[in-house]
Amino acid sequence: MAPLTELSIDDLKALQAQLQTRYDEFSARGLKLDMTRGKPAPEQLDLANGLLSLPGAGDFTTASGVDCRNYGGIDGIPEARELFGAYMGVSPEEIILGGNASLTLMHDTVANAMQHTAWGKAPIKFLCPSPGYDRHFSICEHFGIEMVVVGMDEHGPDMDQVEQLVAGDDSIKGMWCVPKYSNPTGAVYSDAVVDRLASMPAAADFRIFWDNAYEAHTLEAAPAPLKNILQACKDVGNPERVLMFGSTSKISFAGMGVSMVAGSVKSMNGVRSNLKAQTIGPDKINQLRHVRFFKDIDGIHAHMQKHAEILRPKFEAVLEILERELGGQGIATWTRPSGGYFVSLDTLDQCAAQVIQMAGDAGVKLTAAGATFPYRKDPRDRNIRIAPSLPALEDIHTAMEGVAICVQLASVQKQLS
Amino acid sequence: MAPLTELSIDDLKALQAQLQTRYDEFSARGLKLDMTRGKPAPEQLDLANGLLSLPGAGDFTTASGVDCRNYGGIDGIPEARELFGAYMGVSPEEIILGGNASLTLMHDTVANAMQHTAWGKAPIKFLCPSPGYDRHFSICEHFGIEMVVVGMDEHGPDMDQVEQLVAGDDSIKGMWCVPKYSNPTGAVYSDAVVDRLASMPAAADFRIFWDNAYEAHTLEAAPAPLKNILQACKDVGNPERVLMFGSTSKISFAGMGVSMVAGSVKSMNGVRSNLKAQTIGPDKINQLRHVRFFKDIDGIHAHMQKHAEILRPKFEAVLEILERELGGQGIATWTRPSGGYFVSLDTLDQCAAQVIQMAGDAGVKLTAAGATFPYRKDPRDRNIRIAPSLPALEDIHTAMEGVAICVQLASVQKQLS
Repeated sequence: MAPLTELSIDDLKALQAQLQTRYDEFSARGLKLDMTRGKPAPEQLDLANGLLSLPGAGDFTTASGVDCRNYGGIDGIPEARELFGAYMGVSPEEIILGGNASLTLMHDTVANAMQHTAWGKAPIKFLCPSPGYDRHFSICEHFGIEMVVVGMDEHGPDMDQVEQLVAGDDSIKGMWCVPKYSNPTGAVYSDAVVDRLASMPAAADFRIFWDNAYEAHTLEAAPAPLKNILQACKDVGNPERVLMFGSTSKISFAGMGVSMVAGSVKSMNGVRSNLKAQTIGPDKINQLRHVRFFKDIDGIHAHMQKHAEILRPKFEAVLEILERELGGQGIATWTRPSGGYFVSLDTLDQCAAQVIQMAGDAGVKLTAAGATFPYRKDPRDRNIRIAPSLPALEDIHTAMEGVAICVQLASVQKQLS
Repeated sequence: MAPLTELSIDDLKALQAQLQTRYDEFSARGLKLDMTRGKPAPEQLDLANGLLSLPGAGDFTTASGVDCRNYGGIDGIPEARELFGAYMGVSPEEIILGGNASLTLMHDTVANAMQHTAWGKAPIKFLCPSPGYDRHFSICEHFGIEMVVVGMDEHGPDMDQVEQLVAGDDSIKGMWCVPKYSNPTGAVYSDAVVDRLASMPAAADFRIFWDNAYEAHTLEAAPAPLKNILQACKDVGNPERVLMFGSTSKISFAGMGVSMVAGSVKSMNGVRSNLKAQTIGPDKINQLRHVRFFKDIDGIHAHMQKHAEILRPKFEAVLEILERELGGQGIATWTRPSGGYFVSLDTLDQCAAQVIQMAGDAGVKLTAAGATFPYRKDPRDRNIRIAPSLPALEDIHTAMEGVAICVQLASVQKQLS
């Protein structure tokens, strides 16, 4: 198809009429499709149904003899710290296991710093590579932390911008990162980005919140390599700069996973000192259950290949429709992720909110406009996060066709206006 | 035995020599007994071993069709809110279910108020009926909240004192209560105490932290009645005054329970607004697991009768030895709880730390001196918390004999000094 900018007014008007007919026909189908959130599909959850009857009768004791049914143990059981330490690329001493949500560990880390450190004594800021994860931004808003948008490309955040901001402003205390298969762009941080994050001059209490939510969540034969930022930070003498987060929410069950926070031993001591006032310890039986099911790190990666087999056709369907409907017209760009849970679609400037509205009116619910930016404000109003995991494959074809019609229609309208 | 005060110096010295011999013989046995914490015994945990293979293959859906394996639902699943609403004496709309520790819900309630309300803007105080629960006091210390000790008797806190303090001081924002089988005295709050707590004049943002940790934890045929404080608060127009906490930690598994916070619908909205920033929702599978196991409130009470059968002989052993060794001498008083996890032993003033030290030296570890008071400072140095649940019955006999020898020896020494 020719780029829209090369069409005459008459051709544009003819195209608009044709698209309007398609849109009306699509709307008339009265569909109710939901592409809003990165929830695993039931078929993915089924892969871990073995967990539903684990650890099983009589199995409640760790190799070291701890009764997982009883109180005790703030850090998690040894075999689970070993398994998830391997998963996060740290030693068992460098990881603490939490409840079922890494979001809680991130929220509580911010909350504790706001309450018990200098963070709470004067206004502070966080860098927010965007588009990014809305729940990270919600935490900042909840605590009144000013969010500073920095750009993203396929190698991660714009490091020139990051370095310049951090060096000149001691009130920048944190930065959100989803370093692998980033939400929503699918970017994997390059080694150079990791090294620059580890070594750039910054406030002593500047912390990188390294939300490695998709460490093993590849769509290919193996996960993309990601440089170990804790090691990089240690190598340059900044061992406390990074706190790494992860969970099995999209590995086992989204509602019943094991969350984890990792970092230097000193950082873990800090986490522990707050946990001691907050909890009697995590659910050790659930940790044992996960160890029994996955056995070792290879078990996790083998399991994620089964997820990939389910997710791959869904992502391919999204990309196929986008290419077929929007390719070559100069009206949209989109990411082709090799893992994670999202495709990030950029429309022409000032079109995303309109597309999301139109798609919603036609029965295809998309993530709210602006959701991928701090304060829900997309400065160019162009980003749409597409979550293909939950709907059935045939629904994705349908939904994406509807989205693509809306993108074209909004683009033509913009061109004509 | 005659009261110690009626003995002559010579009789006291003879008694001292005799007790010292017993103490030396006891020490020589080289025992290692632990009476420090209220942990369930393995036999109690065994009662819930059915949970280890629940909910079981293919069982992950609520009656309303929610897939408990996936994300979603901040409040807990409907059938679990119904079950635990009945347990806490509230409607399903008045309860939110959390992770495995009610301590976390209490900590986070304080943390959220300190961060997001006027509580954090000026120094505040909590009333601490004492002896009380050390982990409550730790939360206050963690947040720099000044603790004000108020006395306890068998009907609950000294309400004259409480009313006088609260009426005269707007900086008193909270109060810790363990209203049934109180830790450590076993007191059950009387109806009059509940009514006075509900109706006394207090700051608008004064909150009672009603830690009903032992609601069903009777040693008798049925739990003691406790007046519903939420209803009492509603009746006098203070519906937001109380936040009720509970958990199944000492019903199912201490490490894998379901925690809960209850209160008015408005209070629950406040809890929810913070949870939305903090979590993707609680472990719904664990809630379903508990519903499948206990079925209904009668199932919980029937289960607690099995706990009572295990605990009753242990409590009886403690009381039997205390009566045999210390009865009638005027050197100690102790509680005779009808439920809960502790016996509270008061020695003569200024003797508790010495008794705990001596018992420890002889191989019987007791809860640290002062632990039942704010700042670990027992003003009369007389309270010892005895936790009979974990040790085997024969060990309790032995340990309590050791403790009783230490109490007598310390008392004689005090009388002679």
